[in-house]
Amino acid sequence: MARYMDVHRGMHGITAEQLMEAHQADLAIEGEEGVHFERAWADPESGTVYCLSEAPSPEAVQRIHERTGHKADEVHPVPLSV
Amino acid sequence: MARYMDVHRGMHGITAEQLMEAHQADLAIEGEEGVHFERAWADPESGTVYCLSEAPSPEAVQRIHERTGHKADEVHPVPLSV
Repeated sequence: MARYMDVHRGMHGITAEQLMEAHQADLAIEGEEGVHFERAWADPESGTVYCLSEAPSPEAVQRIHERTGHKADEVHPVPLSV
Repeated sequence: MARYMDVHRGMHGITAEQLMEAHQADLAIEGEEGVHFERAWADPESGTVYCLSEAPSPEAVQRIHERTGHKADEVHPVPLSV
């Protein structure tokens, strides 16, 4: 398991409810890929969403996001944290 | 006070110690701008560092990072989180 930060762009105007719905959709199926989405942060103005997860691979993170209809633009491993 | 995610690029090969040192340097002076850096995550391979903070403005976040020698490439407000 490793930690990942993925980034979604073009989410201009995203609301708190939409962020929650997207996160809940990910949580509902994440176990099928051994992924856990821990947190997400959104900037409606720039349309950027950051998701922090633990997962066996970046591909597993992306498969969950794809299945819930919001493919990530970038998935970065973040092995270091403070 | 608002929450911000800032992004540093070009930090290829950053080590756990360097990330900790940079974070400690920020923590040492953050109070002077009313900023608090909560967490940071780094990907040494792509050279990307993400910092999560609470601050009165994006400029305050940037002033701390500039004074400690690591100006951010982007500072995004992230008013929404889950």
